[in-house]
Amino acid sequence: MRNLKITLEYDGAGYYGWQVQTRAHNTIQATLEKTLRSILKEKIDLIGSGRTDSGVHALSQVANFKTSSSIPVRRLGLALNALLPHDIVVTSVKQVAHDFHAIRSARSKVYRYFILNRSYSSALLAGRAYFYKLPLDIKLMRKAAAALVGRHDFKAFSASATKAKTTVRTIKKINIKRIPYNPLGLSVKRRERPLIVIDIESEGFLYNMVRNIVGTLIDIGRKRIPAHDIKRILHSKDRGLAGPTAPAQGLFLIKINY
Amino acid sequence: MRNLKITLEYDGAGYYGWQVQTRAHNTIQATLEKTLRSILKEKIDLIGSGRTDSGVHALSQVANFKTSSSIPVRRLGLALNALLPHDIVVTSVKQVAHDFHAIRSARSKVYRYFILNRSYSSALLAGRAYFYKLPLDIKLMRKAAAALVGRHDFKAFSASATKAKTTVRTIKKINIKRIPYNPLGLSVKRRERPLIVIDIESEGFLYNMVRNIVGTLIDIGRKRIPAHDIKRILHSKDRGLAGPTAPAQGLFLIKINY
Repeated sequence: MRNLKITLEYDGAGYYGWQVQTRAHNTIQATLEKTLRSILKEKIDLIGSGRTDSGVHALSQVANFKTSSSIPVRRLGLALNALLPHDIVVTSVKQVAHDFHAIRSARSKVYRYFILNRSYSSALLAGRAYFYKLPLDIKLMRKAAAALVGRHDFKAFSASATKAKTTVRTIKKINIKRIPYNPLGLSVKRRERPLIVIDIESEGFLYNMVRNIVGTLIDIGRKRIPAHDIKRILHSKDRGLAGPTAPAQGLFLIKINY
Repeated sequence: MRNLKITLEYDGAGYYGWQVQTRAHNTIQATLEKTLRSILKEKIDLIGSGRTDSGVHALSQVANFKTSSSIPVRRLGLALNALLPHDIVVTSVKQVAHDFHAIRSARSKVYRYFILNRSYSSALLAGRAYFYKLPLDIKLMRKAAAALVGRHDFKAFSASATKAKTTVRTIKKINIKRIPYNPLGLSVKRRERPLIVIDIESEGFLYNMVRNIVGTLIDIGRKRIPAHDIKRILHSKDRGLAGPTAPAQGLFLIKINY
């Protein structure tokens, strides 16, 4: 049995996330497993690095599976891309060590969140960024974000119905910057910087954790919550004190570090 | 009567282009006219700078119309964006001189064409770039493109059923470059440059002219047609000698110069 590692990019708009409990819905995982099964003629158990939610995108999701097939990895990649729908693309297939595990071997994951912060939205970023009209002060957002870096109990930022054994996680980095509006390298008005990009790297994430942190940072950026309150929210372990869950559409899984 | 100039961005994937003869279909123009009518309570005749085809996108399309309404331009912009579908966004509304005409006042137009030139496609650029696997030599494409700049009869690059009075046009500039794969500023593997960007600025375009030029440049880049043949094709005025029409999805109207 070989252990194969697949890296993939997807537009999450058309899917009910990576995986749903029942597998009844149209998910990325189910689509990929079905396609692998049709190529390899065997049942495939795909292990994804993390469960992206409905509508969340991935630039670089990683999954692995064991197979008794001897198909060359290059040919498998070509066959997958020929059969998968156009919104899921395999960017690499590699044979890896037998003990490689997409979740357990991951050292950290990086998510990126896009906020389009200007008075009018964007047709070309529809479904790819959260359009937010009110002015956001990213200095305040950065100040608050700094308090979240490190090992903390993130219960206040987890989904209220979390089933995780522990809500302690270690955030390694949060970077917040403004960049020009630049869909596809179509650079226009480069002096304006309406896109806010929030990168969060963590050893692991709780369900909805990125979106709850972003929703809280937005409330801080618009001065609805003072920046120094973030510590109080974190220590309270009370989901009710944090900001709303930011919409899925602005969220991209961009990197898994192994 | 005021003369108002509207600048707009759209994702053309869901529309039968800017305008179709019968107006029976779902077009950008019809959608915008209907929305303007519902806000201004009067019939609107919208003049668009050019008719983008089905599936062609615009970063900056321009249209103008006369209105007896006294609605402030800022409020009209907000009302339009509140009512338009999410794949059409008004980026500016301005009152202009009475003789401003979106077509006749235009000095030049700039179209940009994206080719994703690598072995695997992209989920995030689906419908936004033409995925082309075979290696393309952009030096040959540039050499050929240089021969098209200037005032020429572009009959060989027009739609075969063109009704234009004259097929003479003046191309001011063609720029061809490779850029990194960078959807939404998600810069990855910046050393690789799989996206070919072709900018064409002209005083005017014939129907399908950009897509026919791009299709021919692709045939030259893949060495199916020698670069020096472009002059022979141009002078032949024979559509049959040029390359195929490149797909609409990679094409963006990016600028109208007035």
